[in-house]
Amino acid sequence: MIYAIIGLGIMGGSVAKAIRSNIIGHEDPDGKIFALDKNNESLFAALTSGIIDRAFTPSETKDLLGQADMIFICLYPAATLDFLREHKGDFKDGAIITDISGVKHDLAAALDKDEIRPANAHLILGHPMAGGEKEGFAASKGEYFLNHNYILIKPKGGYEDEAAVEIFRKIIRGMGFTRITEVDADTHDNKIGFTSQLCHVVASAMVESAGDPEITSFGGGSFEDLTRIAMINAPLWTELFLANREKLVAHIENFESQLDNLKKLIETQDANGLQSLLADVRQKRIAMQR
Amino acid sequence: MIYAIIGLGIMGGSVAKAIRSNIIGHEDPDGKIFALDKNNESLFAALTSGIIDRAFTPSETKDLLGQADMIFICLYPAATLDFLREHKGDFKDGAIITDISGVKHDLAAALDKDEIRPANAHLILGHPMAGGEKEGFAASKGEYFLNHNYILIKPKGGYEDEAAVEIFRKIIRGMGFTRITEVDADTHDNKIGFTSQLCHVVASAMVESAGDPEITSFGGGSFEDLTRIAMINAPLWTELFLANREKLVAHIENFESQLDNLKKLIETQDANGLQSLLADVRQKRIAMQR
Repeated sequence: MIYAIIGLGIMGGSVAKAIRSNIIGHEDPDGKIFALDKNNESLFAALTSGIIDRAFTPSETKDLLGQADMIFICLYPAATLDFLREHKGDFKDGAIITDISGVKHDLAAALDKDEIRPANAHLILGHPMAGGEKEGFAASKGEYFLNHNYILIKPKGGYEDEAAVEIFRKIIRGMGFTRITEVDADTHDNKIGFTSQLCHVVASAMVESAGDPEITSFGGGSFEDLTRIAMINAPLWTELFLANREKLVAHIENFESQLDNLKKLIETQDANGLQSLLADVRQKRIAMQR
Repeated sequence: MIYAIIGLGIMGGSVAKAIRSNIIGHEDPDGKIFALDKNNESLFAALTSGIIDRAFTPSETKDLLGQADMIFICLYPAATLDFLREHKGDFKDGAIITDISGVKHDLAAALDKDEIRPANAHLILGHPMAGGEKEGFAASKGEYFLNHNYILIKPKGGYEDEAAVEIFRKIIRGMGFTRITEVDADTHDNKIGFTSQLCHVVASAMVESAGDPEITSFGGGSFEDLTRIAMINAPLWTELFLANREKLVAHIENFESQLDNLKKLIETQDANGLQSLLADVRQKRIAMQR
């Protein structure tokens, strides 16, 4: 099997590394990994370290797509849509194509309207729920995926080809992911708007409200853990926040009203109300542990 | 030297363990650790595992205080104040006494008014900036303190006895803490209201706004990291939030206005404004790394 990675950044690089060590190292010893990037340094680093078998530059895209059996498009959301639109006729027959976009609305709508549906191949929209706050191939790690969640977007009318999805699920599990959740694009965007985007917004607001750059000399871990994700990739998250703005704003407003409720209990010194709310928080959060 | 721990919970237990392995194991081989708790199970566990040398019940408090050279009062804030008020005449001459309260206003005020100033001993208010979200001796770990911050409360008129403070700093470093910051009670409460209390309020509001108990199947780590501290000890944090309510409410409101600013940029689709704010967040947060 030939695995193609389009975009060898932190996510594409991590996909390549996880496939290299967990799949090619085991079930698919003859597998090859090809990667395409506009950044020659990333390609060179991946090639010389033995992570990928062949490097392609953007002008060789068609050549790569004509050979690949499993394609991971690891680009920003808008670039992913453009790539799929431009290359929908370039995939090998029977290929499985996936993406890693953090917002699915536009992609799912374009797929519904057949604007990005590949001719004789299978496009399965997906979202690996893992990564780090850094960027670029140098920050990639196959271990990011271990025991993490993967979300697959199941079209409202069901999968076009269940057999292709099953092959893809096997690859996902091979990469180290342990829980695969399959939902429609709208559910994905709503849940991710909460677990991922709202958290990044909250962490960013925390950092902005810190004032003192030396504040961490008063830290015991809480502020540091809460704001680690605020070492944010500004262009990517701007795109994600805006692409999911309606759902995200609704989550921010719901959070604001919960925060306001807590603030009122503190302001009015309602010890019983506060303690009972915090006991509820504790119980809910413990129930979320797995 | 006889070290006394008053209250053998997660913090008191961790203090005992850190002294046992890092100080008695090294610089003070003849040191002894005595502990007092109302919970006999904790005392028994600490005694049989060799963490403490002698166990005391509350009725034996005076006996313990009459012997101890260094006393860590590891109780909740209001109980700490009561303990100091009740026992200010019971300490050994020259003893060093400290507390671990997360809010210092009331203690510092009582010390200023000589309500809790020990007769011939040195009370140094302090705050070890470390711990876990669990409770009790069973959850204690000496390693919690490694490379963490410790805050000492320096009275406005300076320390009463610099030599006693220097002995205490040496013990703190011996326990594994690497950065000691010395400020007045007001500065402490203001900074901690941000790094610790605001973070706990925000994490609690996040959990309350989650709605779906299965939300973590859509998590990639951000929500989990941000809300780990929401497995909160409700009685303790109710006390802390209320004791520092004015400063905490001001921090909540500052955070709310930063959050609102982010929300407006998203709502109005101001891509440039959003990207420039996120770039600022990133730069600030990276500068906070040490």
